[in-house]
This record gives sequence, structure tokens and C-alpha cells, in this order.
Amino acid sequence: MPTLDLNADLAEGFGTWSLTDDDALLEVVTSANVACGFHAGDAATMRRVCARAVENGVVIGAQVSYHDLAGFGRRFVDADPDELTADLLYQVGALREFARAAGGEVRYLKPHGALYNAVVHHDAQAAAVVEAARVAGLPVLGLPGSRFLARAREAGLTTYGEAFGDRGYTPEGTLVPRREDGALLPDADAVVERARRLAADGVIVAVDGTEIRAEAASLCLHGDTAGAVESARRVAEALRAAGVTLAPFAG
Amino acid sequence: MPTLDLNADLAEGFGTWSLTDDDALLEVVTSANVACGFHAGDAATMRRVCARAVENGVVIGAQVSYHDLAGFGRRFVDADPDELTADLLYQVGALREFARAAGGEVRYLKPHGALYNAVVHHDAQAAAVVEAARVAGLPVLGLPGSRFLARAREAGLTTYGEAFGDRGYTPEGTLVPRREDGALLPDADAVVERARRLAADGVIVAVDGTEIRAEAASLCLHGDTAGAVESARRVAEALRAAGVTLAPFAG
Amino acid sequence: MPTLDLNADLAEGFGTWSLTDDDALLEVVTSANVACGFHAGDAATMRRVCARAVENGVVIGAQVSYHDLAGFGRRFVDADPDELTADLLYQVGALREFARAAGGEVRYLKPHGALYNAVVHHDAQAAAVVEAARVAGLPVLGLPGSRFLARAREAGLTTYGEAFGDRGYTPEGTLVPRREDGALLPDADAVVERARRLAADGVIVAVDGTEIRAEAASLCLHGDTAGAVESARRVAEALRAAGVTLAPFAG
Amino acid sequence: MPTLDLNADLAEGFGTWSLTDDDALLEVVTSANVACGFHAGDAATMRRVCARAVENGVVIGAQVSYHDLAGFGRRFVDADPDELTADLLYQVGALREFARAAGGEVRYLKPHGALYNAVVHHDAQAAAVVEAARVAGLPVLGLPGSRFLARAREAGLTTYGEAFGDRGYTPEGTLVPRREDGALLPDADAVVERARRLAADGVIVAVDGTEIRAEAASLCLHGDTAGAVESARRVAEALRAAGVTLAPFAG
Repeated sequence: MPTLDLNADLAEGFGTWSLTDDDALLEVVTSANVACGFHAGDAATMRRVCARAVENGVVIGAQVSYHDLAGFGRRFVDADPDELTADLLYQVGALREFARAAGGEVRYLKPHGALYNAVVHHDAQAAAVVEAARVAGLPVLGLPGSRFLARAREAGLTTYGEAFGDRGYTPEGTLVPRREDGALLPDADAVVERARRLAADGVIVAVDGTEIRAEAASLCLHGDTAGAVESARRVAEALRAAGVTLAPFAG
Repeated sequence: MPTLDLNADLAEGFGTWSLTDDDALLEVVTSANVACGFHAGDAATMRRVCARAVENGVVIGAQVSYHDLAGFGRRFVDADPDELTADLLYQVGALREFARAAGGEVRYLKPHGALYNAVVHHDAQAAAVVEAARVAGLPVLGLPGSRFLARAREAGLTTYGEAFGDRGYTPEGTLVPRREDGALLPDADAVVERARRLAADGVIVAVDGTEIRAEAASLCLHGDTAGAVESARRVAEALRAAGVTLAPFAG
Repeated sequence: MPTLDLNADLAEGFGTWSLTDDDALLEVVTSANVACGFHAGDAATMRRVCARAVENGVVIGAQVSYHDLAGFGRRFVDADPDELTADLLYQVGALREFARAAGGEVRYLKPHGALYNAVVHHDAQAAAVVEAARVAGLPVLGLPGSRFLARAREAGLTTYGEAFGDRGYTPEGTLVPRREDGALLPDADAVVERARRLAADGVIVAVDGTEIRAEAASLCLHGDTAGAVESARRVAEALRAAGVTLAPFAG
Repeated sequence: MPTLDLNADLAEGFGTWSLTDDDALLEVVTSANVACGFHAGDAATMRRVCARAVENGVVIGAQVSYHDLAGFGRRFVDADPDELTADLLYQVGALREFARAAGGEVRYLKPHGALYNAVVHHDAQAAAVVEAARVAGLPVLGLPGSRFLARAREAGLTTYGEAFGDRGYTPEGTLVPRREDGALLPDADAVVERARRLAADGVIVAVDGTEIRAEAASLCLHGDTAGAVESARRVAEALRAAGVTLAPFAG
């Protein structure tokens, strides 16, 4: 029976501001990438999200970032690798305290935003993130084919690739750039079909119809867009209706 | 044979700025109150201080604070107790990651600056700090006679009181206010004598000569003043010369 | 013909987060309290709001705050008065650059959140805020009867009082505490009636029906609540229908 | 009679931390690049430095930076150009308030650290900095031959180049990379001779003895190194002894 993990970025508020409907999404996803305070995620929100995640049986991952609240972690920062490693360990540790307090634990590390994109090709930063995961003793979640996952495997870490639920893919298996046609799937039905094919057959259908063999243990759903919760629910329901078991990739 | 712990605030730099000579002080003190990033203490500094502390057999404590880098944690903040607890857990967790990475662990929690002073009398904030220590499973270090230590005992936590190496005490056992005569001991010799009497006889000599029975498991030395390292070394040497064993109060 | 100013707090987003529908509110209010980056309000948002305010003929005021992004400026901070004055001047200056770039200018200063409440009675902080306004050469907007306005008058500043559109008043003219019955007006109609009486007769009707003579040059509308824009529009339309001229109190 | 400006980065402390001996350097330099809070420079320090600068007849410049306190502005940040422009205007405005309060004004803009280096070649960021200077109506100070100064000239701004007092130059007029031999001048005498030749003959002597015609209106002295004040004093005295008039390049 096919299984699939659904992950989403959660706890992405800060103080008075909120972005994601954490409670609603925690009833849908199987893995939560919890913001750790450097791009979003204040301590009280992290604590609450960890408690709800444990209640709902959702696996907790550390979504770590550059230290850039003003830029929401979406701007590349040419950070010194050692300082970057320390910054990520800091974030992981903070999250672990809340996971532990809730009776759970942090099960993986996923870089956020510009750091996620940087470690696809930036070797020194990829190594810095891997070093943080190694010291913390955590598996990593990232982009299939990235330097990051390659480095992590070389370091003996458990690695997981993810696919994107709403992004178009080229026949070569890379994402269609955001400015081009086909960057986003046209509608929720297409997202559902993406998820179903990934779970059932392990393939992603590219913009030109090519079937790409996907090494994806998880499907990333966006939580910060309009209709995110509704879309996530539809994907989850359609997958279950198609006989797919939704289960966390880690733990 | 009398024993005494010497503690100091360390890792109180941030980024390009430094304040304390961490390496030198880690060769003197037996307990390090490590800043955790909210009033001072960037991640790379915390990591390095934890590594050196473990190498030197110095016990690591979490020096937690209000979120106030601009004010160095020295301004009272009327924080919501639940948010305060979460902020402190966040800091403890971050430090734990570095302690663990260095092969050590965090052994106690000590509030910093304005929070230290607030929890002497502010019951809701005292309770919030105690709750953080309880959830984190940590003993606490604070001011003898404070609401903080009383609350901590009520919550079943292990508590430790500290005395100050360079502050004058009133006959009632409270600190002479900073603006008054006698607020600071006159010289290093007086600090040494304070330490010796505390270790040997468990007493603190007040400004008027009264001997106060001190419930102090540790003597706090200031690390951020001119001559701090030299003064700390003298205290440690004099204590050893007087047959006092320097040993951490926790762990 | 009666005139009234309507003010609201704007630019209260930060980076990826938003809180207020600035564009919509700038079509309704006559004075904009623009957040200046310390509790909310990133530079790009401040710039855009200033540009729109000038386009719409809305007067720009500096809504200054403690340095507390995590707490949204809603927590009292026991800041040193000189540092507080400097922090406020910093914020005023930043906003002035954007106002000037848009062809406008900053016309008043209004403290935000916990600072607004503190200077009602905290004399040293009231003096610190007044000193900032004096150095900056700005009129101030605040609570009638507060230490803040008294201090400002003593310093020779032009002062303006404001009333709240949606809060209940006691017969003594103070706000009904938020936890008590009557703290908030029951519906939009009541807000409209509040505004109309204030503009037409200069009175506020208290919870028990007492008519209070109000020294209010402006009515504060909340911009960060659900339905805020719709409610603000109704108030403005009802006032115009009642023959009230909406016009800025400053400039 | 030859004249030269000496500039240094000042106000580079933050809260409890300090880096530069601002008072001493303000007795030596003729132009102060004042940190504006984004990489260093809290409001109270900015205010004090502006007051002292005006007292000493030192010209005030805005040393603007990426928003990166943890990295002291020394890490490239791939900021959106519009957001970068807004961030710089914010900083300029804040500084202007303090300059004005002291009876002075901000006379130029100089990018700091990683931004200084980025705009040597990064066209979009160079344009963003120029746009900030244009909107603010300020001349700019930067590296001769940089995209930044070229862009600024195209925009009709007044531009000033600077030379470095303690850095080695290649025969082509670029700086010897920091990791190579000759990156730093060997001693204070060499710095003095650099300054003297620049003032007297308008040339910089490269590491191989080549005389480079320098388009430098100012010589940058480092204020954050050991012996910085003493070295700056020696340079100033030697220049005066050699008949060079020290005078600000701007205003």
C-alpha cells in the first residue's frame, strides 16, 4: 500500500503577527517544519505548535534559517560557515526544548527559504548545514539532487527528499522558475493529482507530460497562501480515498 | 574542609562585540552563567564557551533574560508570564544544544539582570521563571530570601543561593543600594576576605561589621569590569591558600 | 460647522507580516499614526504608507514605541529616560525621511501601546517623550488628563487630546477597564453615535449615560481588528451625512 | 597648500558594548562616518556622537548598512533593491534627527562593510544605494572606480573617493587582498607616509613602488583596531607638520 508524508511550514508568525493557520494544518499534515525564531516563530508559538503536533501525532522538524526576521529568511546571507552552523544548532536546541516539554522530539532538520535554495549549490553553506545536523544527530529533509543531500549522505546522515505540491517541474526534474509559465500548478485538482501519482507510482509529471522518477519521501504543501488549509485538506482526503496511507517519513 | 563555588557571567559578547574574557575566566570559576542570546551571547560564542567550560571542568548554567539586546537585559520588561516562560525555555534549549555538543550539560538556571532583580519580589514573573526551570528540569540559582527561590522550593526544585563578591551588605542581609556608601567593597583584598569568610564560616560581614549567616552555595564574581580576571584569580588563589576547595555547587 | 479628525495606527506590519489594511484606511482617516520600526513598521512599509498618505491628503504622525518587536510595544519597558528620548528621536527621524521623500512632513508624535499607557502616569517617561517631541519640534497627541499632555504643555508644546471610537467611558471620563462590562461599545452604530456627538457637541456619553465634556481633537479608530475598514468607513460616512467636516487636527 | 580629509567609522557600539573611542577620534578626524543602528550604533550613542562632532567641527556622514546586527554588516545580504533603498533612507533619517538636534546636518552617505564591498561591482545594489542618496539629497563617499560612484555620477550626485590609510595597493590601484602579503602597511610610519604623499602629490605608492594617481578626497582611518587612536593622532600631526591642512571634503 502506498504511503506518503505531507509536510508544511508552521509557526511562521512572530509576536502579534501570524501567517499560517497552525491548528488547522496540524490536523492535515504528518510532518511540521516548525520555524525556530530566526526568520519567524516566537517562543510561545513554537511551544504551542509543538504541543499540538504531539497531540495530533505530527512529527516535528526544525525549520532553520539565516538570522533575518526582517527578510523572513528569504534573502541569501553570505554567512560564515562556522557561525551558520552555530546559528542552526541554536535554533534546533530551542525547538527541542519545546518538543521535549510536549512529550515529543525533533526528528529532522530542514533549511528554510533562501538557505534552502542556497544549499542546493553553495557547497560551503551546504557543509555548514550538514555539520549542524550531524552535531545535532538529526536526519535532513531537502531538495533531491542538491549538494545539501549529497553532503549529508557523505557525512553518514539519513536524508529525505521532498517534492512540491504546487510547483511545476521541468522534464529534467528541476522547478520551473517562478517567473515562467507553468511555475505553479493551475488548480487544486492538479495538486491532488500530483500527490496521488507521487504516492502511487513514485513519479512527478513535468509541465510537458514527462514522467520523472521522484526520490521524494514527502510532499511539501504551502501553508501561507490563501486557501492553504482548504487545499491541504483536499489533498489529504483525495490521497486517502485513493488508498494512500499518510504517514510521517521520519520516526 | 570548606568548599565554595565561584560563578561568573560569561559569553556576554554579541557578534563583533565582546565584554568578558571568557577563556581567562573559565580557568578560574567553577560555574559559568552562560548568556543565551536574548541579552547577549551569540550562537558561536555560546558554542565556544560551552566547549571550553567542558574542557576546564566548569559547570554550565543558563543565564536567561528578557528579550532585550539593546538594553542588555538590564531593563524591567512587563512580560506576560506565559511568554516569559516560553522565552526562557527557548534560551535553555539553545544552550543545551551547545553543552551537549561539547559533551556536557546545562546544570542550572540563573536569571540575568533586570529579571534577576524582578523575581526577588515580582511574584508572577518569579512563578514564570520557576515554571521554565520546572519544565526544563533544572535547579535554580538566585538571591537568598527572594520570592524566586521560595517559589522554586514550593515547586519542588533544587535551589541554590548566591552571595556577591564585591557588594556591600546591610546588617539585614540585603545589598547596600548602588548609590549609597559601601555599595561596593573597597578593594580586592576585601573581596578575598569576603570569599574566605563565606567559605570557612558561612558568614558575610556587613558594612557595620555584623556577621550574617549566609545561605550561599556560590559566590558571584563580576566578569565585565576592568581588572575582573585579575581579581577573580586573586580570590581563587587566596581561597585555595586558605584551604578552601573550589568546586561547583551543581552536578 | 463641526469638524473632527479621525486617526488610526497604520504601517503595523513587519517584513512578510501585515496587520492593517493601510491603503483602505488611508482613504478614510485624516491622520495616520505611522509605526516607525520599533514595535512594527519596516522601512519599505513606512515609505509606501507615507507616499499614500500624502497622495490622499492624510496628515502623517510618528507613532513611536519602546524597542520591542517581539512584544509589539505592548509591554512596559523600564527604559532609562535619556535612552528613551534618543530611541524616539531615532524613530521620528526615520519617518521624517519618508514623509519628506513623499513631499509631506511629520506633523505630530503619538506614543504607542505600553508607552502610551505608561506616560499617562509615569512622570519620568512622560518627560522623556516630551523631550523627544520638544527636540523634534513636534506637537503631541495623547490621552486627555495624562501626565504626558500636562508635561508637554509645561514644555510649551502644542498638545492634542484624543477620544476612542470603540471604548466605553466611565462617568469620570476614564476608560472602562478591558475586563469589565462596557469596555467596548456594543456595535458599529454606537461608534458612529460616539463620533457624531463628539463632533457636534464636544461630548462623550459614558456607560451610565453621563455626558462628559471631551477635550478631544481627534477620534482614534482601531485598524487592526476584523471589520476595521468597514467600521471606519461607516463612521466617516455617518459623520459627513451629519454635516461634520473631517479634517486633520494638525497642519 | 595641500588639504586632506580624514574619515573614520564611529558610533560602532551597541547598548552595553563599545568598539571605537568616539570622543578621542572626534578630536582627530575631520569627517565621521556615523553608524546608524543597522550594523551598530544605538540611538543614544548616535545622539552623543553627533553632538560631539558638531562641537569639534567634524562633518557628519551616514554610514549605512544592511540590517544585520549579529553580523556587524559584514555579510553580503541579497536584499531586494527597493527594500534596501528604504532601509538606507530609514537610517539616514534617524541620523539626521540627531545631527539636527546638535545644530549640524548629515553631509554625505557612505555604505558600510559588506554593502561597501558589494556596490563596487553589484549593479542593482549600487543603484539602490544611489537611489537612497538621491532621494535623501546627499553626496556619496566610496571606492574610486566602483560601480557605486559611477552610478552616483550618472544620477547627478556629487561623489567623493577615498583611499585607505593602512591597506596595501596593487600597481593597478586595487587593494591587495587581505590574505596576501602586503595587505596591510607595515607600521604607523608607513601610514603617515601614505597620508603625506596623498595630500601633497595626490598619489598612492603601491606595494611594488608604483605611484598611482589617486582620486581620493579623503583618507579612511580605522577606528576599531588596537592603537587606532594613537595611530590616527600621529597621522594628523605628521600631516600638519608637513604643511597639510586637514579639512572636511564635504560642506
